[in-house]
Amino acid sequence: MKIALVQLNFVVGDVRGNSEKILAGLGRAASAGASLAIFSELAVVGYPPRDLLLKPEFVRANVKAVQQIAESCRGIACLVGFVEENKESLGRSLRNAVAYCAEGRVQQVCHKSLLPTYDVFDEERYFEPGPPVSLINHEGVSLGVSICEDLWNDEQLIGRRLYHEDPVGRLATAGADLIINVSASPFGHEKHDFRIRLFGSQARRHRRPIIFVNQVGGNDELVFDGASAVFNERGQVVAQGGAFQEDMLLVDLAAPDSWRLDPYPVDIAHIHDALVLGTRDYVHKCGFRKVVLGLSGGVDSAVTAAIATEALGPEAVTGVAMPSRYSSTHSLTDAEDLARNLGIDYKVIPISPIHDTFEEYLKPNFADCPPDITEENIQARIRGVLLMALSNKFGWLLLTTGNKSELAVGYCTLYGDMCGGLAVIGDVPKTMVYRLARHINERAGREMVPESTITKPPSAELRPDQTDQDSLPPYEVLDRILEQYITEEKSAGEIIAAGFEAETVHKVIRLVDLSEYKRKQAALCLKVTSRAFGVGRRMPIAARFRYE
Amino acid sequence: MKIALVQLNFVVGDVRGNSEKILAGLGRAASAGASLAIFSELAVVGYPPRDLLLKPEFVRANVKAVQQIAESCRGIACLVGFVEENKESLGRSLRNAVAYCAEGRVQQVCHKSLLPTYDVFDEERYFEPGPPVSLINHEGVSLGVSICEDLWNDEQLIGRRLYHEDPVGRLATAGADLIINVSASPFGHEKHDFRIRLFGSQARRHRRPIIFVNQVGGNDELVFDGASAVFNERGQVVAQGGAFQEDMLLVDLAAPDSWRLDPYPVDIAHIHDALVLGTRDYVHKCGFRKVVLGLSGGVDSAVTAAIATEALGPEAVTGVAMPSRYSSTHSLTDAEDLARNLGIDYKVIPISPIHDTFEEYLKPNFADCPPDITEENIQARIRGVLLMALSNKFGWLLLTTGNKSELAVGYCTLYGDMCGGLAVIGDVPKTMVYRLARHINERAGREMVPESTITKPPSAELRPDQTDQDSLPPYEVLDRILEQYITEEKSAGEIIAAGFEAETVHKVIRLVDLSEYKRKQAALCLKVTSRAFGVGRRMPIAARFRYE
Repeated sequence: MKIALVQLNFVVGDVRGNSEKILAGLGRAASAGASLAIFSELAVVGYPPRDLLLKPEFVRANVKAVQQIAESCRGIACLVGFVEENKESLGRSLRNAVAYCAEGRVQQVCHKSLLPTYDVFDEERYFEPGPPVSLINHEGVSLGVSICEDLWNDEQLIGRRLYHEDPVGRLATAGADLIINVSASPFGHEKHDFRIRLFGSQARRHRRPIIFVNQVGGNDELVFDGASAVFNERGQVVAQGGAFQEDMLLVDLAAPDSWRLDPYPVDIAHIHDALVLGTRDYVHKCGFRKVVLGLSGGVDSAVTAAIATEALGPEAVTGVAMPSRYSSTHSLTDAEDLARNLGIDYKVIPISPIHDTFEEYLKPNFADCPPDITEENIQARIRGVLLMALSNKFGWLLLTTGNKSELAVGYCTLYGDMCGGLAVIGDVPKTMVYRLARHINERAGREMVPESTITKPPSAELRPDQTDQDSLPPYEVLDRILEQYITEEKSAGEIIAAGFEAETVHKVIRLVDLSEYKRKQAALCLKVTSRAFGVGRRMPIAARFRYE
Repeated sequence: MKIALVQLNFVVGDVRGNSEKILAGLGRAASAGASLAIFSELAVVGYPPRDLLLKPEFVRANVKAVQQIAESCRGIACLVGFVEENKESLGRSLRNAVAYCAEGRVQQVCHKSLLPTYDVFDEERYFEPGPPVSLINHEGVSLGVSICEDLWNDEQLIGRRLYHEDPVGRLATAGADLIINVSASPFGHEKHDFRIRLFGSQARRHRRPIIFVNQVGGNDELVFDGASAVFNERGQVVAQGGAFQEDMLLVDLAAPDSWRLDPYPVDIAHIHDALVLGTRDYVHKCGFRKVVLGLSGGVDSAVTAAIATEALGPEAVTGVAMPSRYSSTHSLTDAEDLARNLGIDYKVIPISPIHDTFEEYLKPNFADCPPDITEENIQARIRGVLLMALSNKFGWLLLTTGNKSELAVGYCTLYGDMCGGLAVIGDVPKTMVYRLARHINERAGREMVPESTITKPPSAELRPDQTDQDSLPPYEVLDRILEQYITEEKSAGEIIAAGFEAETVHKVIRLVDLSEYKRKQAALCLKVTSRAFGVGRRMPIAARFRYE
């Protein structure tokens, strides 16, 4: 028996387009001789559909699409994720479901039992957990179908188990020959390694092979990495599809030697690939072809520009330098070098005359107040207005270039450098931005990000001779404090006890807490760490919570 | 037996401050001769605490606070909402709990069973549902304690019941003499009426009196309206505390004739009161004393200014007129009249010279492109920069003045008129804004919002002779389409079938869908309708979902 693991890149909500993709995939699987094609979780609607699920019209369209897909299942069967209406009169009105389609109709439907409702996930908002497990008899092989989180309840590997049920254990006990896990599992730094261990552990425990089929592609802030895989009953990965790309992995159960095992990119390379895919998909799925961004000569805008260029091609990227009275010469030359290295369009618009006019008309209102952060912000906001003007005039999506460290401590200007639809590196800490810059140059085999951009001291250049370290601790220190405070949810006391200077820790935490209002209005940040700003981190703003 | 219903205004996260409030309330209740004081849901932490709940330090502080409150319970008992750690090894790590404190210690803890996870609520993200109900014996009276949603599962009144359990039914069956419902139930238009019917229905069904204690105050976008109440076993409201204010309602069970029954403001008055409270609390809880806003001479900024003045006092509000080359004379006079009527500070900063400078420096980049929306947006963004400069320089919170109708169809400029920390009327449809304007004048007994502001045709004045109705249907039509599409989740076909012009419906829906990216970065909108933009409406952006 041949099984095709079909990992596709879906557009959220686009039931028609997604169905066409699924039908095309089904055709390819049939041509390759597969008797079963497996698609990812909620394939018909794309994951995550979010509040589109509250539209009855949307749910009906997806049910109809599954019926049409089923009608095409002749000579081949498929497992396809969709949203099912809950026919019971009690409980939430939908279920996260997988249809087993064969012989022209939906033969059986399986439901997700464990509904993640943490981090970026909101499944209890929509779905009723599935009724107990049923097996699917596919040509004499008993398939146990689980959906994503159903398998993420491993006693040994999950710190605290959130669920009282163990659907995969039940499938095994019920006599499944093969466990199938249909997923939409988002990418995260080092998450692939964990996934391999988790699936391996489950396969070993239940002494069953597991087939994992994942979604691929960027949907808003989430990037799905694909890398669908097969694990044998000893828990080894024995087949793996491509990462960060659409793929069909064909496994002939009778001929394990023929299976393909694609490598998964390691460390900084997978961050890079995730950002490239996430950027490309966000831009294209929003209906844009081109982007614009400000080039300061610094490493953040350089890395953002390089990723955009990789994602969209140099002809789709315009970089704009907007020197102020405080810009150094090297800023302009670094920006220009970068644009030349990348082969992107490059513009220069000086902001000093506009800045002067603002100051003139604000002066009567500012009276004798000394210059402060206000004047710095005005410069950043003039740049925002200019970039948005280009965006509006030419239909280019504006990319914002801030990194996670500065977004964390509010070292950024709302309606200024925070303008833009997508924060490409908004979940990348500054220290990792430098590693990305090095990686981009190594990957290209030549200088893309200028060496001087990487080596000079970082500066916002909003006042004379300013550097980031005038007001922030060194980024190596800052990033380690932020990791503990934001990702690990440690208290000030615990971070200080781990060896950091008390004054610095308190200052950083205070800045993080005070900046929630900025992040409330920030652009989407492509999520690459386990705790990103955005939908997976939900903080109150008008709040107070210091205990030391 | 005397029971004190103590409705307080908490700051989210401020365990120390909230505890002090609770202790003071306990003192007042004891002085009044109460044997039991009842506080609202999660009183110690303020509702909703959101992801502060993921901080172990925060949860520990709240547990400690409850113990301290319990120690003060001598000669009086209390029921107080807090977050309890779930001691079981399986399941989510917290519970939404109420402590019964008496004789100096926590005697008993009750848990919330029904965890709302829809609209603005995310309780399954944090809490494990409570173990089965236990009664509390307070001086011989058997108290059945439920927490907010526990009671919102009425067969007759709730369209589709989401839950399989009926905690209030269980409390009644177990022999509770009195049902207590400890709540943090946010305000909504016409929700108070529904609440009265719901509690009445439950009281009748179980033939038990119900005591409802609600939180009061604004926390970010949510406004809690208080109006704590007592229902007799026939389902009648027999006592009610003040709405939109802190209050202590004392009920002597032996003397029902002595109970106070405060009126609840009707219709547009309750929207007004909610916005005033929400604005005051957001500004103060964020640590600001003063606000600034742009005055266009139109009804949106006029109503926003009037609400801010009511909330904070005229000395705390600065209105800024920023006329452009397209501004009419009446805009300036209307703005000036408004400022005079309200007694607020008033500034004029013309934007034409700045606009000219922008155009000059953008010209080489715009080549021969004809003027379009770009030039309109530049004006709105210049105003944003000016207002933010005043905000930064003087520490005034910027209020944004857009209404729900324009936010729905994207008739607003990102980083322009959308600048600001709080959208006071961001959940108020335009037709309701006019009603608010009339109400404000009637309430004051004189003209606050100038009559000409109310009667002239609305215009953004971003190009010559522009009016809103050049590009939008009349607001009476627009608001009815938006209500059906956004709140009722109806399809285009259903709205057209209800009697609206097909072309208009498709155009409006397209505008709503295309504007998700703007709303992603919008200011917090004070929620007054059942479906507000913000945390309770979670839409994908890079999505497609048209089926006609």
